[in-house]
Amino acid sequence: MRAFPLADFLWQKDGADIDARVMKFMAGDDVVLDRELFVFDLRASKAHAEGLRNIDVLSQEECQQLCKGLEELETAFTSGDFELDERYEDGHSAIEAWLTDRLGEVGKKIHTGRSRNDQVLVATRLYLLDALAQLGDLCRDSASAFLTRAKQDPTTPMPGYTHLQHAVVSSTGHWFAGYAEAFVDNAALALDTARWISCNPLGTAAGYGVNLPLDRDYTTRALGFERMQINPMYAQNSRGKFEIQALTAMSQALLDVRRVAWDLSLFCMPELAYVKLPDRFTTGSSIMPNKRNPDLIELLRASYGVVSGALNEMQNILALPGAYHRDLQFTKGPVLRATRHTLQALSLLPDLIATMRFDAERLQASIEPEMFATDVALSLAASGVPFRDAYRQALGDRDALTAISPQQSLEARTSMGAPGNLLLDDIAARIDAL
Amino acid sequence: MRAFPLADFLWQKDGADIDARVMKFMAGDDVVLDRELFVFDLRASKAHAEGLRNIDVLSQEECQQLCKGLEELETAFTSGDFELDERYEDGHSAIEAWLTDRLGEVGKKIHTGRSRNDQVLVATRLYLLDALAQLGDLCRDSASAFLTRAKQDPTTPMPGYTHLQHAVVSSTGHWFAGYAEAFVDNAALALDTARWISCNPLGTAAGYGVNLPLDRDYTTRALGFERMQINPMYAQNSRGKFEIQALTAMSQALLDVRRVAWDLSLFCMPELAYVKLPDRFTTGSSIMPNKRNPDLIELLRASYGVVSGALNEMQNILALPGAYHRDLQFTKGPVLRATRHTLQALSLLPDLIATMRFDAERLQASIEPEMFATDVALSLAASGVPFRDAYRQALGDRDALTAISPQQSLEARTSMGAPGNLLLDDIAARIDAL
Amino acid sequence: MRAFPLADFLWQKDGADIDARVMKFMAGDDVVLDRELFVFDLRASKAHAEGLRNIDVLSQEECQQLCKGLEELETAFTSGDFELDERYEDGHSAIEAWLTDRLGEVGKKIHTGRSRNDQVLVATRLYLLDALAQLGDLCRDSASAFLTRAKQDPTTPMPGYTHLQHAVVSSTGHWFAGYAEAFVDNAALALDTARWISCNPLGTAAGYGVNLPLDRDYTTRALGFERMQINPMYAQNSRGKFEIQALTAMSQALLDVRRVAWDLSLFCMPELAYVKLPDRFTTGSSIMPNKRNPDLIELLRASYGVVSGALNEMQNILALPGAYHRDLQFTKGPVLRATRHTLQALSLLPDLIATMRFDAERLQASIEPEMFATDVALSLAASGVPFRDAYRQALGDRDALTAISPQQSLEARTSMGAPGNLLLDDIAARIDAL
Amino acid sequence: MRAFPLADFLWQKDGADIDARVMKFMAGDDVVLDRELFVFDLRASKAHAEGLRNIDVLSQEECQQLCKGLEELETAFTSGDFELDERYEDGHSAIEAWLTDRLGEVGKKIHTGRSRNDQVLVATRLYLLDALAQLGDLCRDSASAFLTRAKQDPTTPMPGYTHLQHAVVSSTGHWFAGYAEAFVDNAALALDTARWISCNPLGTAAGYGVNLPLDRDYTTRALGFERMQINPMYAQNSRGKFEIQALTAMSQALLDVRRVAWDLSLFCMPELAYVKLPDRFTTGSSIMPNKRNPDLIELLRASYGVVSGALNEMQNILALPGAYHRDLQFTKGPVLRATRHTLQALSLLPDLIATMRFDAERLQASIEPEMFATDVALSLAASGVPFRDAYRQALGDRDALTAISPQQSLEARTSMGAPGNLLLDDIAARIDAL
Repeated sequence: MRAFPLADFLWQKDGADIDARVMKFMAGDDVVLDRELFVFDLRASKAHAEGLRNIDVLSQEECQQLCKGLEELETAFTSGDFELDERYEDGHSAIEAWLTDRLGEVGKKIHTGRSRNDQVLVATRLYLLDALAQLGDLCRDSASAFLTRAKQDPTTPMPGYTHLQHAVVSSTGHWFAGYAEAFVDNAALALDTARWISCNPLGTAAGYGVNLPLDRDYTTRALGFERMQINPMYAQNSRGKFEIQALTAMSQALLDVRRVAWDLSLFCMPELAYVKLPDRFTTGSSIMPNKRNPDLIELLRASYGVVSGALNEMQNILALPGAYHRDLQFTKGPVLRATRHTLQALSLLPDLIATMRFDAERLQASIEPEMFATDVALSLAASGVPFRDAYRQALGDRDALTAISPQQSLEARTSMGAPGNLLLDDIAARIDAL
Repeated sequence: MRAFPLADFLWQKDGADIDARVMKFMAGDDVVLDRELFVFDLRASKAHAEGLRNIDVLSQEECQQLCKGLEELETAFTSGDFELDERYEDGHSAIEAWLTDRLGEVGKKIHTGRSRNDQVLVATRLYLLDALAQLGDLCRDSASAFLTRAKQDPTTPMPGYTHLQHAVVSSTGHWFAGYAEAFVDNAALALDTARWISCNPLGTAAGYGVNLPLDRDYTTRALGFERMQINPMYAQNSRGKFEIQALTAMSQALLDVRRVAWDLSLFCMPELAYVKLPDRFTTGSSIMPNKRNPDLIELLRASYGVVSGALNEMQNILALPGAYHRDLQFTKGPVLRATRHTLQALSLLPDLIATMRFDAERLQASIEPEMFATDVALSLAASGVPFRDAYRQALGDRDALTAISPQQSLEARTSMGAPGNLLLDDIAARIDAL
Repeated sequence: MRAFPLADFLWQKDGADIDARVMKFMAGDDVVLDRELFVFDLRASKAHAEGLRNIDVLSQEECQQLCKGLEELETAFTSGDFELDERYEDGHSAIEAWLTDRLGEVGKKIHTGRSRNDQVLVATRLYLLDALAQLGDLCRDSASAFLTRAKQDPTTPMPGYTHLQHAVVSSTGHWFAGYAEAFVDNAALALDTARWISCNPLGTAAGYGVNLPLDRDYTTRALGFERMQINPMYAQNSRGKFEIQALTAMSQALLDVRRVAWDLSLFCMPELAYVKLPDRFTTGSSIMPNKRNPDLIELLRASYGVVSGALNEMQNILALPGAYHRDLQFTKGPVLRATRHTLQALSLLPDLIATMRFDAERLQASIEPEMFATDVALSLAASGVPFRDAYRQALGDRDALTAISPQQSLEARTSMGAPGNLLLDDIAARIDAL
Repeated sequence: MRAFPLADFLWQKDGADIDARVMKFMAGDDVVLDRELFVFDLRASKAHAEGLRNIDVLSQEECQQLCKGLEELETAFTSGDFELDERYEDGHSAIEAWLTDRLGEVGKKIHTGRSRNDQVLVATRLYLLDALAQLGDLCRDSASAFLTRAKQDPTTPMPGYTHLQHAVVSSTGHWFAGYAEAFVDNAALALDTARWISCNPLGTAAGYGVNLPLDRDYTTRALGFERMQINPMYAQNSRGKFEIQALTAMSQALLDVRRVAWDLSLFCMPELAYVKLPDRFTTGSSIMPNKRNPDLIELLRASYGVVSGALNEMQNILALPGAYHRDLQFTKGPVLRATRHTLQALSLLPDLIATMRFDAERLQASIEPEMFATDVALSLAASGVPFRDAYRQALGDRDALTAISPQQSLEARTSMGAPGNLLLDDIAARIDAL
């Protein structure tokens, strides 16, 4: 395999000075990052070859040779026989080098009418479309996991909080159903976002198009994009822009993950002890025998920061005039880091939700009669006592407070979606409609 | 009009200690911010009253009285006859106080079956739906303004840059068309986002519903929401979440505004002098007679920071367990600040684009023969010279370089969307389809 | 008083087109924001006049007239007799206009050899030096408040947590002392930061100096700066830079406020009920009679977001080449907003700490024997049992676990700073040394 | 060498369920990140062993064995003979495992009286102290590089800009000197920050101290810390806090790097062509023979985003109550990523500055007579013409404008620090005083 030679850039003048520290800084870990984009780059390369055949820039035979080579490279990469590493400047160069090494001159033709600028754009869009599809699936699976628990356990009373203070009685079903609906919205957002970024930049080259009537309609269809990105300048100007939107969709799911994890972290405190996690989701301490730590939910809680940090990094980098600047290379790291982390974190959620256990007795024990004061005040008001007076009397009326059971309080809460009227079928219908 | 009395909270114990500094800190500028939400709060209140009538909690007459009162209050507020100020704890309290002052006991009934928690949520969603509709319109207007200029001036040659270095020749039409397409995407995103947040939280109270069979289907329809937010806990948990998505849509438009403004800022530099702005978009200096500063485009460029700062502020505030916490009050300031600023900034863009002038001579003067080196190299390659050799010969072949005109170079760039094939009708069709 | 006339800019050409919407967007709320900078602008103006007298640009009498005028304006502003409002473009213009109105031609001389660029820089540095001094005081007061409580209540046992799970027994003194030391560091940082930004930009004009041998050494001393900012270009380039450092010092204090507030929020949960806050720091609910909400600590917790949002806003705005750009005007809003909020929030902390009450019985009740397992394991290990075995035995040895009292466990924890050896005098010495 | 066995955690119950995906998510790349902290962990371990000897927990011989082992491990690690990899849970575990493997039972004693919590804190503080020392050096070297160029080339005229528009004439010396002073401030900030974080957490264990009278004064001195971090709870609570301050110091240097890079990016535009960079700092294009791209300065410009992203990531993670939470593990990645990147970027700056070349002719050609209008207006004003009139006349007086040379304009600009009075010796004195 041809190694990546510093002195072998096409633009390199003979004998010119190369500064190794500078080259290292400029290369960064680009080629390593490209491993995650590589299969998408290969698929786009195949579509590109076919598009060139359509306009007779490649013969049918050349096209077949190239496509076969690209498929072989994907197989070799996937199996580990081909390693994308520092021998190559980046994944794009590696494709051309590998094809040329295998196929001779025809290998070089893969780069006809494209530049690395549109190559990285198309690979990144395909990568994110794939990631958003996974995100949508994971959010739907999470919604289903929450909904299943809500159906299994709709009416167990639990304290309802506001300001982390006791408000009124709530139920486990109410808690589960709330997150089920949240993840329906997160799944819908993933799908909306995928549609928005499903826009083909292949064929825009470095932002000014090329001297060939590229069959961009074909590559748009072949790669499954919903529409073509028409203007090459916009293709460049959208670098970072569509990635931000994809990462925002991820961050929305993680915002709810953070909230769920926070709830569980509180529910696992010994003073509450509302929830028991499976042992495999906790760790012990090497010094304190009594510890059982919910590390997993803490790391899930922290995951939002990974994506918000990546968004911030990109926002700062994008403060640029239009067209391509090398600064944009630095968007790749945060995009891949955030995407990988999001999908990994979310993939653990459905199982966590399916296997966590609420302790009905602990929940019940934490409900005190004062939590029915609102019910009492409402009853008094219904019987004609001015609400201001009812409000003041309610807490003092111990008999009334202790006469109410949590179940009664819940059943009386009949507004749509409330604990007495959870409308779980409606949420199920929304999951099905995704 | 009843003033807002610190000692008059329902929950206030007689003779209890009130700390003025603490009250001031807690109130913040909440009531002032509520001015922007007030008309939406009033409209939701009307729908709420009608919903209460549907379930016979209000008589038809009571409902009419309340609705008439709400309409009068909106008129008084809009005309300036009613001022929402520190006399009231917030806009929600003001509505009840005003109605009670006008209508007596029936006024208090407006608050039956709701809390300020769902009141602020529904008002904020309505406010943002209105803002996103405006955003969509402004983005579409911006896209149209760019496209109009592209049609007027499709082929004037201008230097095309990458890395702020000369790349190949481009055209004014290409530059305008790129931003036209960007703002189509921004408009589409505004509409997608509006659909996603069009979800009715009214009737969820403080996160646990109420003891009444509220007609939430009715209020959902009456307020024009696409769907009901089913679960009351989720309604609370979505505080901040939907605002982030709305602000992200705004930030995407401002990301392109920043890029346009950066381009114009460069194009206005005296060494380039590609663009002339109308005087009314520039200012002078009070000390340097020779200055003419493009302040407007600099402030447009800076506008992105306003929204990204607001997003950061909310992200940090939202690091909370589920259910309501008072922290969430602090999301209101950044949401309103960012929204107001975004719409104000964007409203100036279409006129700026319509009236800026490119200087064709200056653009032409900045194009040097080396910018055709790629054309020459491609020609040589087409004639059989290996591209590596062609690349090395091109720059040295002065005759070939000087034989090409910018127009010829542009016309040869025929890939779809490129300067020689702008596909403006396709962009126009996308604007029409919004 | 001379009104601020749109048509009256020095640079305004006769009959030129003024766009009201553009003017409004460009003005923003600048003049309102300048109210907070105004006294600092006046003091710098006085030093500037004296410096001009030192180089004979002003006569002694002119200087006296101007200084007297500036003092009168400060008195009028402070008393409310003079209002800085939209009649003026900004505070800088207001000073010149007011002096000219009062003193005639000599009034105009105040602007000799300066520009609004160095004027806003010097006023902002003075404002932040004042704010950092206040920040230092508030942090020291907070440290003292925590330390006083630690001294009053050094040994009351409380559960020590990691991962929000019970770890070992801790003490109220340990908790208070930890925050005391944190605020010593925060105070030290405020002072370090003040020294770092104590650098005089007055006399640098718009970034290129002026044609006068200004006595910048004098103004540096007169305004109490530690050093002169030598280079005028750097003065401009430091816009935003020093503000970021000041806001970072504020954010560090708020980071600990957020942590304290979080602790208290948990400690106030009914399931823990470790802490009782004075009623004046809590609010009730208008619908739930049983609620008592710790709103103050929730808003303190949320305060960090205000400053981090402001920092983000500035970071994005500052993505610029060197020298002045109008974008920089937009740094003023976040700086003032964050500073005001930080000082307001911190000013409430010492009283909160001084008056909150731990409930020793509740704390005691939450300590279970398993929290002494580490003590037992250490004892077993000390007696020769391999630690791995000791660790496994400890939890099972109920007799050993129940034989230990919280006090004994605390007293045995003798490492420096630990609950059995709090070293409060050392922390006191650090407060004194600030 | 002992491998890291998933089933071999001390806390692991026999036969308990281990979830590989969860373990992988929780481990993250922690052990790989620990490579950068490892030598600091080893040095702190040595001080810890000596401290244990001082209180007779270790015999002199045991201490010597451990210290010798730690030195050997450092040698093996530095030489590459020992690889810190996934065989270990983290670097802390690796130390104990390696020592135990080599030394038998005595190896386990290294962990007496400490936990991984204080171990990671002390290693991180030592790592950042080292990084800040490097940062200080690099900033001082950068200041010196700028100052050297200012001295070499103090008076070459160049256009002075505000708003990217021509203002008055400036000089290369003025430009260089401005950045020299900026990097003096950056170096001072690095040193201030180092002092602030030079605070020893070793001996605080998991936040509650230990049952041993650890000689923390000794370890504080032995590791070169300025002071001991007294309170163990504060040691935990400062996790993330001190890292933020260190990263802020880095970000301030990168803020100026971003500005310098932006200036150079503009100065390299062909329309300005003020600056020529050495070829080794630029790259070519593989398709456009005419391109020479200043990639290095673009990547330097983008570097700020890496650190601001890391800061954002940490800010979000730190939204927690006091004491240790597993979330805090996620601060390690951004700290190391930002530090590594900052030092790498800054290390390239001095050479870049030393070797870039201004083109005096291009600079001169860009100065037009209108840039002297301020000089003319000031002269007219000095001769008695009211400034408002002088301002209006100046631009029209072509004779006066063309009579002034750039050198004359510069020489007249005599305010301290201005182009006619650069005070380079004063800046040099500040560098020397660092």
